[in-house]
Amino acid sequence: MNKITDLFNIKYPIIQGGMVWCSGWRLASAVSNNGGLGLIGAGSMHPNTFREHIQKCKKATDKPFGVNLPLLYPQIDQLIDIIIDEQVKIVFTSAGNPSKYTTKLKENGITVVHVIANTKFALKAQQAGVDAIVAEGFEAGGHNGREETTTMALIPLIKDNVTIPVIAAGGIANGRQMAAAMALGANGVQIGSAFAVTQESSAHYDFKKHVVDSVDGDTILTLKPLTPVRLMKNEFCIDVEKMILKGEEADVLRQFLGKGRAKKGIFEGNLVDGELEIGQVAASINSIPTVAQLMEDIVCQYNRTIDSLVKL
Amino acid sequence: MNKITDLFNIKYPIIQGGMVWCSGWRLASAVSNNGGLGLIGAGSMHPNTFREHIQKCKKATDKPFGVNLPLLYPQIDQLIDIIIDEQVKIVFTSAGNPSKYTTKLKENGITVVHVIANTKFALKAQQAGVDAIVAEGFEAGGHNGREETTTMALIPLIKDNVTIPVIAAGGIANGRQMAAAMALGANGVQIGSAFAVTQESSAHYDFKKHVVDSVDGDTILTLKPLTPVRLMKNEFCIDVEKMILKGEEADVLRQFLGKGRAKKGIFEGNLVDGELEIGQVAASINSIPTVAQLMEDIVCQYNRTIDSLVKL
Repeated sequence: MNKITDLFNIKYPIIQGGMVWCSGWRLASAVSNNGGLGLIGAGSMHPNTFREHIQKCKKATDKPFGVNLPLLYPQIDQLIDIIIDEQVKIVFTSAGNPSKYTTKLKENGITVVHVIANTKFALKAQQAGVDAIVAEGFEAGGHNGREETTTMALIPLIKDNVTIPVIAAGGIANGRQMAAAMALGANGVQIGSAFAVTQESSAHYDFKKHVVDSVDGDTILTLKPLTPVRLMKNEFCIDVEKMILKGEEADVLRQFLGKGRAKKGIFEGNLVDGELEIGQVAASINSIPTVAQLMEDIVCQYNRTIDSLVKL
Repeated sequence: MNKITDLFNIKYPIIQGGMVWCSGWRLASAVSNNGGLGLIGAGSMHPNTFREHIQKCKKATDKPFGVNLPLLYPQIDQLIDIIIDEQVKIVFTSAGNPSKYTTKLKENGITVVHVIANTKFALKAQQAGVDAIVAEGFEAGGHNGREETTTMALIPLIKDNVTIPVIAAGGIANGRQMAAAMALGANGVQIGSAFAVTQESSAHYDFKKHVVDSVDGDTILTLKPLTPVRLMKNEFCIDVEKMILKGEEADVLRQFLGKGRAKKGIFEGNLVDGELEIGQVAASINSIPTVAQLMEDIVCQYNRTIDSLVKL
């Protein structure tokens, strides 16, 4: 038992990232059923779909699960009402200021965790009253911080600055990386990419296969003039980088980006024009396992790694 | 004992980075005298100065030490002759292709280590016959790879691809980070920034103080159209970034960069116009210790960290 397994009442301090177009009820319930904490990713869901996923997840597991809520979601108040109405007990908030919503969620008995990428926002989140934070490094897939601080540099710094539990995210896909994160001082880990390519993830098979086939250097942190996001390099990405190098304004980029790029890439498997959100660990991912297999691999390798470390 | 302490015949698998304008004989010998491997950084030295530093280092320690040799150094052949002539036994090569020089160095009984930042060059270095590699992540100070792969993502990947020992670099300044690197599969660590601000480093006091005062987000990987290099953000840096965003050509940047910027920043303490090479861990560095104090702190915290890790 540790602070994170205590906080969520779970077996392993392993949290699945609530990723757009990957993290529906099927993935979240599988992670929870295997001893971790599954999260439904609200970011890609209409409110009605979101409610449906919560209801299905409740039927599929009697273990704790949560939702990931990007605070910049347009119908955020509607989603929060659904969360309270459906008695979801754990909410991870990201991409926004937690001070506005944390109190309301906590008044309804909900455990709140906020995602940050620097010391300043870690302190703000703690002040807002969240129960824990996710500290996310530069290597993570999807939306990312502007400071570009990596997990290795970020976790000890955040641990020295806050008193609430810290969950490390970014660069963690196997047991060695989980052991490293715990050595850095994390109380638990959040794993995204590795769960995105499990059989229970709702991502398109072609997207999963593409991740499995990738090598180091195949992802890039791009769209920096808008919001930095880590993607697999593809034609869309290269076009964006060319526009940035030409000095195009944010508005031009926003128009080129358009809507539905992540759905196109991750859910529909359009590897050319889609936004293929994934972390740098993609290069280390070599199979499309079930959640049960992945969890077992991580836990076994974590334990072997701890055993292998010798003192100086 | 492990593969790295065996290879170099040292007490701790801790190697000091051979940093320009920091790593003279004083720093290198102090690290070696305290159980690590000190490296003289040839990158900032004229051949005569380089020979002088080697000779002084030999007088200051009877322990093994080495030199760091950037392969793009203009008078590289002259430096190699000095290394052989002075019977230096350990050479770390960086910034270039190791296949040309490794054979000559090894024929002279020298242990050769090459710095890489991706799988492709790790395999090339192994094929060239080097004895070990340094795998350097995106968070490291100074010159850096184009793939931007972080230490957390890079080390397990490299370990799975090569058979020679791997030294992790980038994001390592304390015992927790060293434990994390070893958990990732590294056989040893290379530490730069933390040694750059020790009392024995030849960097200017104002540079060291500036590093101690910095917070997360204060470094940036810049000059990407030339060679990516991680620096503390200052006026020089901001001007470079503006030029890049305006779409300036590499030649214009090269002219603006000019010569002697690193000396100006690190050695002369010009915090405005100098190139202030340092890693992201700068934010975690809070004092200017002696090498002996730093080594003791790292080893103690490493051992405490290993002790604190519990199996799942």
